[in-house]
Amino acid sequence: MANMMVIGVDIGGTHMRSALVDSEGQIILRRRTFSENSSGASRATERLIQECRALMDDAARLGGRVAAVGLGVAGKIDSENGRVMFSPHLPALNGHPLASELRDRLEIPVVMENDANAFGIGESWMGAGLGLDNWIGVTLGTGVGGCLFLGGRLWQGDQLGFVGEVGHMIVHPDGPRCACGQNGCLEAHASASALLEGVESAASRGILAAGPLFDFWRARKLTAERVFHCANQGNAVAQALFQRMGWALGLALANLFRVLGIRHAIIGGGVSSGWDQFIIPLEKSMSQYSCMLDIGVIDVRRSVLGDDAALLGSARLAVNVVN
Amino acid sequence: MANMMVIGVDIGGTHMRSALVDSEGQIILRRRTFSENSSGASRATERLIQECRALMDDAARLGGRVAAVGLGVAGKIDSENGRVMFSPHLPALNGHPLASELRDRLEIPVVMENDANAFGIGESWMGAGLGLDNWIGVTLGTGVGGCLFLGGRLWQGDQLGFVGEVGHMIVHPDGPRCACGQNGCLEAHASASALLEGVESAASRGILAAGPLFDFWRARKLTAERVFHCANQGNAVAQALFQRMGWALGLALANLFRVLGIRHAIIGGGVSSGWDQFIIPLEKSMSQYSCMLDIGVIDVRRSVLGDDAALLGSARLAVNVVN
Repeated sequence: MANMMVIGVDIGGTHMRSALVDSEGQIILRRRTFSENSSGASRATERLIQECRALMDDAARLGGRVAAVGLGVAGKIDSENGRVMFSPHLPALNGHPLASELRDRLEIPVVMENDANAFGIGESWMGAGLGLDNWIGVTLGTGVGGCLFLGGRLWQGDQLGFVGEVGHMIVHPDGPRCACGQNGCLEAHASASALLEGVESAASRGILAAGPLFDFWRARKLTAERVFHCANQGNAVAQALFQRMGWALGLALANLFRVLGIRHAIIGGGVSSGWDQFIIPLEKSMSQYSCMLDIGVIDVRRSVLGDDAALLGSARLAVNVVN
Repeated sequence: MANMMVIGVDIGGTHMRSALVDSEGQIILRRRTFSENSSGASRATERLIQECRALMDDAARLGGRVAAVGLGVAGKIDSENGRVMFSPHLPALNGHPLASELRDRLEIPVVMENDANAFGIGESWMGAGLGLDNWIGVTLGTGVGGCLFLGGRLWQGDQLGFVGEVGHMIVHPDGPRCACGQNGCLEAHASASALLEGVESAASRGILAAGPLFDFWRARKLTAERVFHCANQGNAVAQALFQRMGWALGLALANLFRVLGIRHAIIGGGVSSGWDQFIIPLEKSMSQYSCMLDIGVIDVRRSVLGDDAALLGSARLAVNVVN
């Protein structure tokens, strides 16, 4: 019998990353392309089908067979009906029955989850969540996503299409404007967008001194990673932005630990590469807001799987469908 | 065989309320006395034993038998060892093995829970939580307590001694000082203490106009209930304090609904009698902070059992021990 394999796909606002994965979570082969988000749902779906067919061919060449596909997609997902309800960073897919269309075309089972939930499933399967029953997952990227594991399982709440939305918790009602329209969301303090807007704001207030950060800003070549490097090199504006990130994360997690009565969190996503700049402010913030908590037992961990967390989580969902 | 009955006790900072309850939740007889909190743990324990013995005698007279006692106590409770870990409003009991001492003296099983958890168990048994799987409980009293029901059961988290601490969620980091030492807790916006301190602050700023509220304040006879009556009579300071309460509750619940992916909350405690003054500001606040939520399905209910919720919840815990 052919070796059972699955495909995991992580569809972000810019890139679509996919991989051929075995049932033990070993990544056999990776692909990466653009999401084709701006050209409409049918173009994005075609690109996704191409990627899956290429991986299915690869599987066959390796003597294997793809049994199912798992998709991790940013936004409100109706997993049951395989439909993207609303995706702020992938507007072309809004309302699109992506998973069910893919299933019809590829003739294999396809499951879809929110990308932050997929991140959590990945970390729980073979990352920082291994062996933890109760924990909060936070993904720091263009926006801030989240997930909740309770009693060893991904918590789905009342199946309302939103859950684990840590990014839109308000940490300061008079805080910076968020892309969602609210003021003071965690996302407006702790995302890549928050870093870039923070530099923009510093520049407009005339407090961005000459140097690499100023140069990147003037050349419109700012990225979260560059803000991080400038913070490491001692730039005060960049460091203050990471301190704000750590403060906001500490407050949000302290609030949630108090209500959930738990003590573990896992932080991932691309911007978690700025860990060394925000972890000390985060710990300081949590100590400041420690009422009812036992700070000594709090355990905030960094993602182990990094960029592969959502990819592997999606693959795991596919494995579950087959088993 | 004698009719099985239990005793439920709700021990607050000032009063100790107890009742003889049958296994169906019918209250047969009530007692109420002072908590004797200021005179030390042994005096408070003796008073509790007196109350229980009186109810046991009553049960015998009625042809029944008390099978167990359930205690609801404000603070951090170590249910497993029957010990009060830390109680801000009952400092005499800090560290005291209240439940285990009571068990030894009365020679029947005694269980103890945090009073907000007892409130939740009561509402879930025969109140506003009947039939609800997932909901947040909030008790508005001298302080603000809370509990969490997930999957139809009281959520206990990692058994760290704190859970459901909604009152110490920070809703505004620059907000008013809380008794716990933090700034901007929900409790500092939405408790009886917050109402009284709000009037105090208005008086010190010279914006408390002549009238009943001013008179109560000057005579040092302010209570949360009087602030509520003055709000009903149109006093602007009192109304603003209930608006602040509703705003803070709306923000805190919106943040929790987003993360938990659920849609039900039940509000109880003595200060929930101010419902008519804070519910509209609460709904307005939740609409303002509705990112990712479907406001149309949100359901914030008022406690059905009122003052009896924690008493009945404690009784239910006692029934569970016997069955």
